[in-house]
Amino acid sequence: MQAVALRRGSSSPELVEKPRPVPDAGEALVRTLRVGVDGTDHEILAGHHGEFPANADHLVLGHEAVGVVADANGTALSEGDVVVPTVRRPPADGPTEWFDRGQPDMAPPDETVERGISGAHGFMSEFFTSPVEYLVPIPADLAEWGFLVEPISVAEKALELADASRSSFDWRPESALVLGNGSLGLLTLAMLDDRFERTYCLGRRDRPDPTVDVIEALGGTYVDSRETPVPTVPDAHEPMDLVFEATGYARHAFESIDALAPNGVAALLGVPDSWTFEVDGGDLHRELVMTNKALVGSVNSGYRHFEAAVETLADLPSWLLDDLVTEVADLENLDHAFADDETTIKTAVKFDNQ
Amino acid sequence: MQAVALRRGSSSPELVEKPRPVPDAGEALVRTLRVGVDGTDHEILAGHHGEFPANADHLVLGHEAVGVVADANGTALSEGDVVVPTVRRPPADGPTEWFDRGQPDMAPPDETVERGISGAHGFMSEFFTSPVEYLVPIPADLAEWGFLVEPISVAEKALELADASRSSFDWRPESALVLGNGSLGLLTLAMLDDRFERTYCLGRRDRPDPTVDVIEALGGTYVDSRETPVPTVPDAHEPMDLVFEATGYARHAFESIDALAPNGVAALLGVPDSWTFEVDGGDLHRELVMTNKALVGSVNSGYRHFEAAVETLADLPSWLLDDLVTEVADLENLDHAFADDETTIKTAVKFDNQ
Repeated sequence: MQAVALRRGSSSPELVEKPRPVPDAGEALVRTLRVGVDGTDHEILAGHHGEFPANADHLVLGHEAVGVVADANGTALSEGDVVVPTVRRPPADGPTEWFDRGQPDMAPPDETVERGISGAHGFMSEFFTSPVEYLVPIPADLAEWGFLVEPISVAEKALELADASRSSFDWRPESALVLGNGSLGLLTLAMLDDRFERTYCLGRRDRPDPTVDVIEALGGTYVDSRETPVPTVPDAHEPMDLVFEATGYARHAFESIDALAPNGVAALLGVPDSWTFEVDGGDLHRELVMTNKALVGSVNSGYRHFEAAVETLADLPSWLLDDLVTEVADLENLDHAFADDETTIKTAVKFDNQ
Repeated sequence: MQAVALRRGSSSPELVEKPRPVPDAGEALVRTLRVGVDGTDHEILAGHHGEFPANADHLVLGHEAVGVVADANGTALSEGDVVVPTVRRPPADGPTEWFDRGQPDMAPPDETVERGISGAHGFMSEFFTSPVEYLVPIPADLAEWGFLVEPISVAEKALELADASRSSFDWRPESALVLGNGSLGLLTLAMLDDRFERTYCLGRRDRPDPTVDVIEALGGTYVDSRETPVPTVPDAHEPMDLVFEATGYARHAFESIDALAPNGVAALLGVPDSWTFEVDGGDLHRELVMTNKALVGSVNSGYRHFEAAVETLADLPSWLLDDLVTEVADLENLDHAFADDETTIKTAVKFDNQ
C-alpha cells in the first residue's frame, strides 16, 4: 500500500510503498479516508518536533485521520464503521500507567509515543491498524470532515482544563480571545461562539484574507497583532476572561497574563523552541496573584475529548467547514496538502478514490 | 480605646487613641483578643503594599484577628461568641458584584477594600465592628490561636484553586514543595502533611534555625535555596506535584514550572514589585504545554475558606502552634510583635488583659 512519510534527513513528505498491516488480536484494520495536515506536521518536516520510530528510516506522517473499518477482526466494531483514531499509544517497553488509568493524554512525553508525531508511524497510509480502544466511532455522515475531530479534541481538552481551573468559584466568562488564526485557532473560535458573549481572534494578516473573513463570519473581532499587541488588547478592546493560545509564540504565554480579565485563564497549546527574553516577572507574578489569574498548559487529548469533538463537529455550520478546508488533495497532488501560504487554512490528504 | 496604626509618612506602628466604634444595624461589636502580624503588615510598614483609608491620616493595622462578641446588637450572634473577621469589605461607593455573589475574595482589587491593608482600618484595636456576615464563629477553645485562621484560610483558598485546576483528570499527587519558610509557608506545610506523601519546604537559613526545626518536626525536608535553587529541585529531590509559592520572589513564579512534575500545579501567593529579568520563555511555555502544567494565582480568602481553616486549625498539633507563635506581645511591648529576625516565626498583639 501507499503511505506518506518523512525520511530521515529529508524535509519533504514522500510516497513510500509499505505492506498492508495485519491486525493483531484486539485490533481492527482501518481503510483510511482522509488525513488532515496541521502545524505539527510542518514542524515535524522542519525538524523542530517529533521523533522517528526506533530503528526506522522514515516516519509515516499523519495524526488527524478518519477511516472505515475494513476488518473488524473479531472486535466489537463492525466492517463499515467510520472511526477516528486517537494519537497516543503506550511505548514498546515503557510504563503504561496513564493508559491503564484511561488518560494517556496526561502521560509525560517519555511515557507515550504519538502516532505520526513521535516514535510511531502515523495514519497517512491506505490502511492502518489500531487497538479498538483507540478508535472512536463517528456518524457516517461526518466521514468527510472526520479528520477535524482530532484537532477539535485538542481544543476540547484545553478548554476542559481551563474550565476546571475556574470551577472552584462562580465564574461567568463573557469574552474570549484566540491567539492564532490557523485552523486550530479558527476551529476553537467557532467552538467558543456558543460559550462566550464576545469573541476575538488575533493574527498578523492584511485584509483581504480568508482567515479574517472566517473570523468575521463567525461574529468574532479580528485583532491585528501588528497594531494591537497582546498586552494592549484590554485597552483596545476589553480584558479577556479566556485566552486560548494557539500560536506557539513564546511571548504570548506571558503576554496573555496582561490580556486577561481578573479571574481569567489562559490555555496554552503552542510548542515553542527555547527562546530567552526579558519579562517584567514581578508585574506578571503580582498580576497573577492579585487578580486570581491562571495559566494552564494542555497537550494532546483523550477518548472523551474525541467524543466531545464529534458532537462539536456535528454542530459546526457547513459553510465554515467549506471555508476552513481549502484543499483535500489526493496522493498525486500531495504537495497541495502540504502547502503553507496565506490562501491555505486547512488541508487534508484523501485516500478514498473508489 | 487604643489602636495600633501606621501614620502617613511613618514606617513604624504606633499606639493611637480612637473612639470605641458603635455598631450599625446588622453589625456586631467585637472585643479584640489577638491580632496576628504577617509579611503583609511588614510590607505595609515599608510602604510597598496597601493604601490608607480615604481622608485618613493613619491606617489601623491588622487583618488577622480573633475576638469576642461584646454587643450582638440584635444580630444572630450572641455576646461571648468567639469570632474571626474576614478581611474584604465593599468599597464605600463601589460596585458590590462579587460581594453579592458571596465571593469577595474574587473581586478585582479596585472593587474591594481590605481591612488593615487597603482602604479600610484593620482590627488591631481594643474593639472593632463588622457586619455579622463577615464574622466567622469559631470554637471558644480555639480563641487563643484564632488569629491563625485568616492566614490558614488564604492557604485553603490557594489549595482549592490548585486542586480545581487538576480536577478534570485523575490527579494523584504525592509530592509538595512550599517555597518560603515564613509562618504562612510553615502553616501550609503542616496542612499538606495529610494530603501528600512527601513534603518539602524551601528557605535560605543556616542551621540551627527554628523554622528548619519546624519543617523537620513536621516530617518535611528542608531545601536550602542557596544550595538547591528551585529549578534544580527535581534533580536534587524529586519533581513536585504541587508547588506553593509564599515568598513573593518573582523568579519563583517562573522557576516553579521547572520544579513541577508532569501535570503539576504551582499556586502563587506572593506579591512582588516590578522586576524585569530574563527567562527562557520558550522552554517554560513548551514545558507548561507538553506536560500539562498549570500556574494559579490566589489572593485573599472567602467565608468558606475561613470555615475550612477553623477545621484545619483544630487539627494542628499543639506543639506546632507553640513553636510557630514565637511572640504574643501586649500593647506595652508592641515592638516585639513587629520584630522580624531569624528567631521570629509568627507574632501577634494581644488585647486581652483581663
